[in-house]
Amino acid sequence: MQYHRVSYEKLANFCQHVFEGYGFSAEQSKQITDVLLAADLSGIESHGIQRLIRYHKEITGGLVKLDAKPEIVFETPLSAVIEGNDSMGQTLGVQAMELAIEKAKKSGFGMVTVRNSNHYGIAGYYTKMAAKEGLIGMCMTNTEAIMVPTFGRQAMLGTNPIAFAMPAQPTIYSFDAATTVVPRGKLEVYVKRGNGLPIGWALDENGNDSDDADRVLKNIIAKTGGGILPLGGSGEMTSGYKGYGFAMLCEIATAILSGGTTSNYIYKTPGRANIAHCFIALDHGMFGDKAEIEANFSKYLQEIRESAKAEGQERIYIHGEKEAEAEVRVLCEGVSLNDKTYEEMRMIGEYTGAQDYLPEYLD
Amino acid sequence: MQYHRVSYEKLANFCQHVFEGYGFSAEQSKQITDVLLAADLSGIESHGIQRLIRYHKEITGGLVKLDAKPEIVFETPLSAVIEGNDSMGQTLGVQAMELAIEKAKKSGFGMVTVRNSNHYGIAGYYTKMAAKEGLIGMCMTNTEAIMVPTFGRQAMLGTNPIAFAMPAQPTIYSFDAATTVVPRGKLEVYVKRGNGLPIGWALDENGNDSDDADRVLKNIIAKTGGGILPLGGSGEMTSGYKGYGFAMLCEIATAILSGGTTSNYIYKTPGRANIAHCFIALDHGMFGDKAEIEANFSKYLQEIRESAKAEGQERIYIHGEKEAEAEVRVLCEGVSLNDKTYEEMRMIGEYTGAQDYLPEYLD
Repeated sequence: MQYHRVSYEKLANFCQHVFEGYGFSAEQSKQITDVLLAADLSGIESHGIQRLIRYHKEITGGLVKLDAKPEIVFETPLSAVIEGNDSMGQTLGVQAMELAIEKAKKSGFGMVTVRNSNHYGIAGYYTKMAAKEGLIGMCMTNTEAIMVPTFGRQAMLGTNPIAFAMPAQPTIYSFDAATTVVPRGKLEVYVKRGNGLPIGWALDENGNDSDDADRVLKNIIAKTGGGILPLGGSGEMTSGYKGYGFAMLCEIATAILSGGTTSNYIYKTPGRANIAHCFIALDHGMFGDKAEIEANFSKYLQEIRESAKAEGQERIYIHGEKEAEAEVRVLCEGVSLNDKTYEEMRMIGEYTGAQDYLPEYLD
Repeated sequence: MQYHRVSYEKLANFCQHVFEGYGFSAEQSKQITDVLLAADLSGIESHGIQRLIRYHKEITGGLVKLDAKPEIVFETPLSAVIEGNDSMGQTLGVQAMELAIEKAKKSGFGMVTVRNSNHYGIAGYYTKMAAKEGLIGMCMTNTEAIMVPTFGRQAMLGTNPIAFAMPAQPTIYSFDAATTVVPRGKLEVYVKRGNGLPIGWALDENGNDSDDADRVLKNIIAKTGGGILPLGGSGEMTSGYKGYGFAMLCEIATAILSGGTTSNYIYKTPGRANIAHCFIALDHGMFGDKAEIEANFSKYLQEIRESAKAEGQERIYIHGEKEAEAEVRVLCEGVSLNDKTYEEMRMIGEYTGAQDYLPEYLD
């Protein structure tokens, strides 16, 4: 695969026309585009424009219901449950986090759960929405089951990312991580390279540690057992039951508190994804002077940055720093995408009538 | 070391008299005893009666101020910050979680942070307080710095346990885990046994992986660099930056949101511990019918229990199950303690005038 760069602005304009071409409103199309390209801006290729083909299939295949109307089915001053009715995950995500932010601004805390949604992109997008409004944001989603619980051989939980963000200087603190040891995309990379997997990433169909990327991935696709390990690895030696526990926190906050569907039922009903999310906004003004709290936090982060490095290492990263630096680079130099993705974009452009907006290569 | 069993009730009675002997009120002594022995009841020896000697030293050494009065220094309907004034961690913990529960019962959500406290025992005690009241509980504490951030060689974060609990059938769901790959106590066990540490647990003073338990522990005590790794291990291969991120969540919720002290300053001021905690209670009635929510959760947990086991494994555990089973066993058979601990109890009993209540061995 060859990589080329395209202008971020032109790529965003193309996506805007693509989503409008499917029938989304201009506002919805902007929301979806923003979330999708936030990944490319952050240097997270796996969740960015290369996934346009996935959304194309989900929209044209009917998983995403274009004319669906999400409904608030339960609400209190601090909380809400949104029935997604199979809407697009990104538009639901933005709506739900906006509602959580509104509640937090009024009452100090807002928590909105969403059921029967679709894939919503990167969790970190939504937590940063809260941080940009001067709040602490937290966001979780469940996913198709791929995590095998400790001592099991059958995937029962999702990759179940947990994200949180908080205002800080010089950059928003932003943590966003799957509770599996690695995401599925990493296995795909190892299959393509033909390399053996590191032990501690995945299990074979019998629940034993495996270094065979091809076998593990085939099992995952065929649902014949095995899968990816929780953060902490297999068994108890390196505490895999902790990653399994954090993934459970995610299932509680998303599926259980929305009256939705746990990961082991996602993509099991024909024509529906049944993914669930959770969005939390918290005003740290509930705990004192916000400027002082943020200054103390920034001071601690700086102390960590300046602490002694391991032999051979030059830098200790704060979560979100790599992404913030990538954003500056991508805005200047363009989004890097491979020729396979570009061909998919061309096809999708023609399908949606957005072909004239396909961005040209910068190099 | 030889192990013997003593009656739980007699042990609790002994502890009650010990803490009253130091000068705590009857109510405070009961709170401290309950938290302390909750660990033994759960089969977690490390945090139970064998730690009485630690508390004895902290109380008689002046770290714990017996006559201190905790103050609520900031409060909203959903939140509070308690200035601990170096009180006993357990009494502060119970007070803070009771306040969070009261707020959650009124408003749906309560979050109380505590600064300038002492060691408070097991986090899971406090989350179960909420679960027993029909709420979701969450609890965190920071600790003396022992976790080295990814690419570092200097401990900058604590073991920083995160606990949460939720009502479920047949047993309260209860997760309680350090965000380090292992707690310090596990290193101590390896030193005693003279075994090499598994790679992925700890770093030497240069920030390199180490299997030398003795060297790592000596470095930790002398604060000469190195320490325990975050959940996920060293570097990025098995995602140690995720454990580092969850530990940061803990620092934010405890030190930062209480105006307190981050782990790198704990036990640094002579005569003070400066530990910070966070207590959260959330009423899941904010998201629908509670009985239905709990039934859905219990159903999912049962599906996980019944899912296929790894080769050679007979059981998949739900977090909190091992502890609930241990409790039944300990109440029937007694608390197991070693003769070193018993001798410490004898000394402490004489010091506090509780010697007549020292429980006799059952075996």
